[in-house]
Amino acid sequence: MAELTHLDASGTARMVDVGDKAITQREAVATALVCMQPETFSLLRQGGHAKGDVLTVARIAGIQAAKKCADLIPLCHPLMLNSVDVDFLLDAEANAVRITARCSLSGKTGVEMEALTAASVAALTIYDMCKAVDRGMVIRELGLAEKLGGKSGHWRREQGPD
Amino acid sequence: MAELTHLDASGTARMVDVGDKAITQREAVATALVCMQPETFSLLRQGGHAKGDVLTVARIAGIQAAKKCADLIPLCHPLMLNSVDVDFLLDAEANAVRITARCSLSGKTGVEMEALTAASVAALTIYDMCKAVDRGMVIRELGLAEKLGGKSGHWRREQGPD
Amino acid sequence: MAELTHLDASGTARMVDVGDKAITQREAVATALVCMQPETFSLLRQGGHAKGDVLTVARIAGIQAAKKCADLIPLCHPLMLNSVDVDFLLDAEANAVRITARCSLSGKTGVEMEALTAASVAALTIYDMCKAVDRGMVIRELGLAEKLGGKSGHWRREQGPD
Amino acid sequence: MAELTHLDASGTARMVDVGDKAITQREAVATALVCMQPETFSLLRQGGHAKGDVLTVARIAGIQAAKKCADLIPLCHPLMLNSVDVDFLLDAEANAVRITARCSLSGKTGVEMEALTAASVAALTIYDMCKAVDRGMVIRELGLAEKLGGKSGHWRREQGPD
Amino acid sequence: MAELTHLDASGTARMVDVGDKAITQREAVATALVCMQPETFSLLRQGGHAKGDVLTVARIAGIQAAKKCADLIPLCHPLMLNSVDVDFLLDAEANAVRITARCSLSGKTGVEMEALTAASVAALTIYDMCKAVDRGMVIRELGLAEKLGGKSGHWRREQGPD
Amino acid sequence: MAELTHLDASGTARMVDVGDKAITQREAVATALVCMQPETFSLLRQGGHAKGDVLTVARIAGIQAAKKCADLIPLCHPLMLNSVDVDFLLDAEANAVRITARCSLSGKTGVEMEALTAASVAALTIYDMCKAVDRGMVIRELGLAEKLGGKSGHWRREQGPD
Repeated sequence: MAELTHLDASGTARMVDVGDKAITQREAVATALVCMQPETFSLLRQGGHAKGDVLTVARIAGIQAAKKCADLIPLCHPLMLNSVDVDFLLDAEANAVRITARCSLSGKTGVEMEALTAASVAALTIYDMCKAVDRGMVIRELGLAEKLGGKSGHWRREQGPD
Repeated sequence: MAELTHLDASGTARMVDVGDKAITQREAVATALVCMQPETFSLLRQGGHAKGDVLTVARIAGIQAAKKCADLIPLCHPLMLNSVDVDFLLDAEANAVRITARCSLSGKTGVEMEALTAASVAALTIYDMCKAVDRGMVIRELGLAEKLGGKSGHWRREQGPD
Repeated sequence: MAELTHLDASGTARMVDVGDKAITQREAVATALVCMQPETFSLLRQGGHAKGDVLTVARIAGIQAAKKCADLIPLCHPLMLNSVDVDFLLDAEANAVRITARCSLSGKTGVEMEALTAASVAALTIYDMCKAVDRGMVIRELGLAEKLGGKSGHWRREQGPD
Repeated sequence: MAELTHLDASGTARMVDVGDKAITQREAVATALVCMQPETFSLLRQGGHAKGDVLTVARIAGIQAAKKCADLIPLCHPLMLNSVDVDFLLDAEANAVRITARCSLSGKTGVEMEALTAASVAALTIYDMCKAVDRGMVIRELGLAEKLGGKSGHWRREQGPD
Repeated sequence: MAELTHLDASGTARMVDVGDKAITQREAVATALVCMQPETFSLLRQGGHAKGDVLTVARIAGIQAAKKCADLIPLCHPLMLNSVDVDFLLDAEANAVRITARCSLSGKTGVEMEALTAASVAALTIYDMCKAVDRGMVIRELGLAEKLGGKSGHWRREQGPD
Repeated sequence: MAELTHLDASGTARMVDVGDKAITQREAVATALVCMQPETFSLLRQGGHAKGDVLTVARIAGIQAAKKCADLIPLCHPLMLNSVDVDFLLDAEANAVRITARCSLSGKTGVEMEALTAASVAALTIYDMCKAVDRGMVIRELGLAEKLGGKSGHWRREQGPD
């Protein structure tokens, strides 16, 4: 039967011991949406440099957050990421920024949490930089899109979360 | 016209100077949903200690993340929170955990980002502890619910994000 | 003759170079006691959830501290722990919480400091959560109980420190 | 009746809200012992520079740890210390280093945890620098010696913990 | 006679106690130069977006480093910055980026170290992003340009360091 | 043609993917100068213990900063250093402290940034400890002196930066 691996038989929280896991190439992709008012979206997408700056700040925040994942998520293992990418797509129909964060590792444990943390902090940074004009922005559909490597192999979300 | 306060006239990212702001009592509430499969929800809610442990770990992660907000969000100011609360409601109809994070401060700048960061990291921690049984969980509707204090005064989301 | 490996020939503090050490499976166990008034001990052990919460918070604090060891202890190497376990035993005769912290690693350097740091911060967290009723609690007998792996092999404390 | 202030009525861990507390001058002193073999103690106390280096490294580690207290102890508030002092006394009769850590603050919350954290990490650093010659060193009697300021006023341990 | 305030009468490193200092408005400005090959300088200054990205990443790194100053410089006090600005000037004659970092605070201690740390880490980030084409870049003339507030009042470097 | 590896084809900042790089033995040496008034230099070099304390504090700060490099420099990879050495030479002719920082690693990426960060933070710490007597001190000629390992092999600065 399925069980929560972060709880032992007595229900106590624990870090999974990865000592016996093989070192494999692992990758994970997480996505999220930052939804805003049409006016906010216009401000964000207009003019090259300003937009570039908001998204560059958010990208850097996401990359740095991925590196801090084990410090933020209590039962995550420290690990040495091979790469972190954070990309943005301005979705004019949805008045939303679509965030894709991708992490890779040669290691014993998956990088799902690193990718999710990167997407989450990138989204919060966009919120922070635009909140003076739109306090009601909402971060939606933050989830894992795909993972590769490790014992469980390839997994892909059957349909996007939105 | 509205403008992004984290960009200066030339579109360059900057930290807002709060030197001239008054010290007032400030508070912010953020909410989020962690949506999961019915089976995962059942595992999470069953039995006292195990559930307690998952939610206690998530609460601690959220509280610690609020204290790290200025380290995660590049243009946030360091500040000395008076309190951080992270609460959970198990919503059986939605098969979801509803997270409410509340931060307060006597200071020069709002605590919206601290509350949002606490809710976000608490949600990610629940994801982490349950992901072995349900990789497809999605974090939805992360947003500000209310804020008090500061020049802009009281603000409340007119309708919940979901 | 014995020498302090963290000082060079001129007595200057230095980080030991582990470049030529072999990667082996390493493990270390540290223990500590948190001694308190009988009334405090009763408060702590009574009722399931409350006790669970104090010890879960202390466990998480200990686990996270082990991951931060190289940031706290100046000459420690950063490393990638395979696991951290922190366990508690309520010793009614001694009115004390007995803490056992166990760390493991596949790496070039021992994990004694990580285990000691986990036990120490778990003990301090118990102190923090109970100090309002018992400021005089004392942390006793924090020491290494056992280590395995590395050039020096297996070591076990001949008798418990208390 | 006495109660654990870090648990609410339902036994859930929480951060105490210090919003209504007055800003007062606060101070706390913590002490600890690092007990070792006579040979280790001789190595440590001999020759000026080497000893100076071990104790200076331990002092710096203790000071930096006091500044990180809110990051290590989950329910501690971030605060702005006025000072941190870490002093050492070489006790030849006990073959031990006696550590005294003193923190002060103008603020809303006590600095006991900061002083205890400083003493604890200073002790661990001495252990780290001497462990190659004496793995069995033990940290004893880590406790609060004195506190001043705040609503509870002056408190002093009636007798030293050892 | 002049003395090093971070050493006490016996020559031991210590954190200055700022408990009795007045809270005043303080400001500090630090400057530095990143000197490079003409070809590197051309790559950096050409085309809007790429340049913007290098300098935005460096700016964010500098701002975040100022917030971490007390964690990096052992005897610095934690403090709550009102603002951090990091600006860049492309000096085509010198084939150098001129960095100016400015920090302000309402507090008990100066912000010179925060400004110097911001300038230093911004410079290192530029080095990092350009090092693949020019390993020989040199960071020059990192120093304090001006400070205001506090007991010592206004100070300005009589001539620029270069 | 040479290109900035931290920018992709569209000029967006990115972390280099090191997944396909070989694990080799790598080493880097960085140097810097802290230039001061003759009176400051005399204070610093006089008497054993005081000088020892300033330089030991600076050494520890440099070592700890090397371990935090990936947290400070946004596009650096987290890595597990084999060693960090920070050495000082008191140059009486130049009234300057010459800093040499050396880092080594068995890994996929170079350690230039770690060595530069160590030298930089050691220099800033010397500035901090002496600034009360000499605010005008300047950090000069911070640069890479040598690197070994990796695809680009051995590189040595043809002439010192000063």
